[in-house]
Amino acid sequence: MSDNLHSRENSAAVDRGGVCAPRGFRAGGVHCGIRDADESKNDLALIVSEVPCAAAAVYTTNKVKGAPLAVTRAHLADGRARAVIVNSGNANTCAPGGVETAEEVCRLTASELGCRENEVLVASTGVIGEELHLEPFERGIPELVRSLGEDGSDAAARGIMTTDTVKKEEVETFTLDGHRCTIGGIAKGSGMIHPNMATMLAFITTDVRIAPDMLQRLLREDIRDTFNQLSVDGDTSTNDMVLALASGLAGNDEISGDGTAYRAFAAAFRRLTTRLVRGLAADGEGAGKLIECHVAGARTKETARIVARSVVSSNLLKAAIFGEDANWGRVLCAIGYAPGDFSTARIAVAIASDNGRVVVCRDSQYYEHSEEQAARVLAADAIRIEIDLGEGDAEADAWGCDLTYDYVRINGDYRS
Amino acid sequence: MSDNLHSRENSAAVDRGGVCAPRGFRAGGVHCGIRDADESKNDLALIVSEVPCAAAAVYTTNKVKGAPLAVTRAHLADGRARAVIVNSGNANTCAPGGVETAEEVCRLTASELGCRENEVLVASTGVIGEELHLEPFERGIPELVRSLGEDGSDAAARGIMTTDTVKKEEVETFTLDGHRCTIGGIAKGSGMIHPNMATMLAFITTDVRIAPDMLQRLLREDIRDTFNQLSVDGDTSTNDMVLALASGLAGNDEISGDGTAYRAFAAAFRRLTTRLVRGLAADGEGAGKLIECHVAGARTKETARIVARSVVSSNLLKAAIFGEDANWGRVLCAIGYAPGDFSTARIAVAIASDNGRVVVCRDSQYYEHSEEQAARVLAADAIRIEIDLGEGDAEADAWGCDLTYDYVRINGDYRS
Repeated sequence: MSDNLHSRENSAAVDRGGVCAPRGFRAGGVHCGIRDADESKNDLALIVSEVPCAAAAVYTTNKVKGAPLAVTRAHLADGRARAVIVNSGNANTCAPGGVETAEEVCRLTASELGCRENEVLVASTGVIGEELHLEPFERGIPELVRSLGEDGSDAAARGIMTTDTVKKEEVETFTLDGHRCTIGGIAKGSGMIHPNMATMLAFITTDVRIAPDMLQRLLREDIRDTFNQLSVDGDTSTNDMVLALASGLAGNDEISGDGTAYRAFAAAFRRLTTRLVRGLAADGEGAGKLIECHVAGARTKETARIVARSVVSSNLLKAAIFGEDANWGRVLCAIGYAPGDFSTARIAVAIASDNGRVVVCRDSQYYEHSEEQAARVLAADAIRIEIDLGEGDAEADAWGCDLTYDYVRINGDYRS
Repeated sequence: MSDNLHSRENSAAVDRGGVCAPRGFRAGGVHCGIRDADESKNDLALIVSEVPCAAAAVYTTNKVKGAPLAVTRAHLADGRARAVIVNSGNANTCAPGGVETAEEVCRLTASELGCRENEVLVASTGVIGEELHLEPFERGIPELVRSLGEDGSDAAARGIMTTDTVKKEEVETFTLDGHRCTIGGIAKGSGMIHPNMATMLAFITTDVRIAPDMLQRLLREDIRDTFNQLSVDGDTSTNDMVLALASGLAGNDEISGDGTAYRAFAAAFRRLTTRLVRGLAADGEGAGKLIECHVAGARTKETARIVARSVVSSNLLKAAIFGEDANWGRVLCAIGYAPGDFSTARIAVAIASDNGRVVVCRDSQYYEHSEEQAARVLAADAIRIEIDLGEGDAEADAWGCDLTYDYVRINGDYRS
């Protein structure tokens, strides 16, 4: 057993982005040949903390779950972890011996790092139903551990990508009792994305000191307004998870309850996850435009969330946004079929972007506007649909993307 | 007030199809210029019975409802009707004065036919949010009434079409206590189709004698396994309805309870609606292939329905079928995110068509099969996905279509 948990690099000299931004973390990514013959595409990623971390995770609500989720859940029973190993190219789902393979991947990683097997968490993304072979891991993990660095977030972010076209990597800083704290995150996800942990993996590191149960609570609360409000295609995947690791090296007093420090951390965490989610939506499979929906005037937060999600999930609206058509009737339609008890009599709808803002509907009826101005607004890359239900004070956002020819092309031919 | 309820044609000489097949019905369709400048496209349809009918209807579950639904519901309070007037091109939804307009359309129709206004039912389909003007109806209804004929089902079926590419028209016959009974139906619907009365209009006529409450019950029971199991794009429309009119001219004893006659009628009705639904799915917007999903081995009928619907609604699976890719992992994924309490441990999946049948999954894992054979099966125009959940005896079907470039094209540019 070797000791590869501690950095031997001079951290002052390197650019520490993404998951390496908080103190105590290194990362890396390599190509080990899991599926893709293209050696320029990383398919294995590792994030390592030099100290044991408080750790928390949320998982897909799909009843068909990838084998790595069972292993990660078991390893997280004590709320502690030191490393996350992730492969792309194969989801290790509905395939023979999946749990044993995921366990062996953790064992190999722990052995190379010099830590306990249950300190390693595991995630996979890619094709469902094909056996995940161990050979690439046996070759790749030693190389991956050798490659770990404080500048390794970029390689790790690329290692978890599948049909993603850009890497998603974010950093957020804030201050707790005079201590500068940092949160970093990487995420992947492009298609098969829908509320409740769709094909989306996000790994978030922080140097905040926090009790594991509070980290779990924060994560659970956060995703209701961020990752669970993201829909690319309505398909909730089998494998996805959002994982948070907190090294505690920032020096703040441990957050063990719901006070000022917890709220400050939650607010910074929300800023980071919101940026990750926007990035995931904008890079949805085949997406040409980001669609953000803001719902205000709802009686309850949950109604606001449901309505916002219904709008960004509507195939018809997504196709209209692709066509730059201000078809507000489809917005009303998608509001109307959102489940829940709310009135549809006083709805206002505006469409906004960097090119301007136009009110298209008031009191649930057509509101006089210029089609030319609406077309100008819709020509932008990021479209914001603002809805006021007119019966309360609750608000929520949801994120999605347009439905394009490329979505069909990509998903008509994913396996080949 | 004229009497235009009774046919003056010699019925022996004409071909009575669709809604004109049962005794007592005439129909017609004209172009009156509601929206489309193309005069070759009918935009107004009428179905008339020469005697008062038992009548029943089911409506969209969308909270935003078209104005015609409120008027039809009010006119159906007594369970009786004689005529249905339907326009395409404008949904009369979220538009000024919608209810008054729908009432005036019924009044104009009743006046031309010589019946009471509340004997006329009304439906609209088309763009949401634009005012429906009366002038085209004032011109069109007299012409439409003059055109009524026992061969008018074809013209009516064409009058209710929007983006449909083929008309949907079916006839079914059966025998009740020695009396030959007939059911006829026309339907439209192409996009914005999803369970619970999506953008779909269906008008079903029959000469069976049945009490209005039993007709309503039969319709409500039937749609759970037919129209509500149909999804083209996950968008539940604001306007749709399925309407049944029973003239009672077949001569059978009135069906007033749940006996043999009721069950025989329900079985024949189911055969007709199943054919209409298959036709709607196959002609889904941009559809290249019909997707039928049969779920067996469920513990409850409702679980079977939900799972079948989830599979035909999956964008990812729909795109895979378009690409003729036997991506059974997406079938498992869509089963897994269907709501409800069922096991996903023993799922079997087969893909079938006129070109053959191939088992692709057993016990929720890959089942050895030839990719070439799967590709051959998927090359057909109608694809059947057969699922066995392996934990009960309940079964259900659902219908949908593939997701294609043309869906995106049609819906990116519907209003222009």
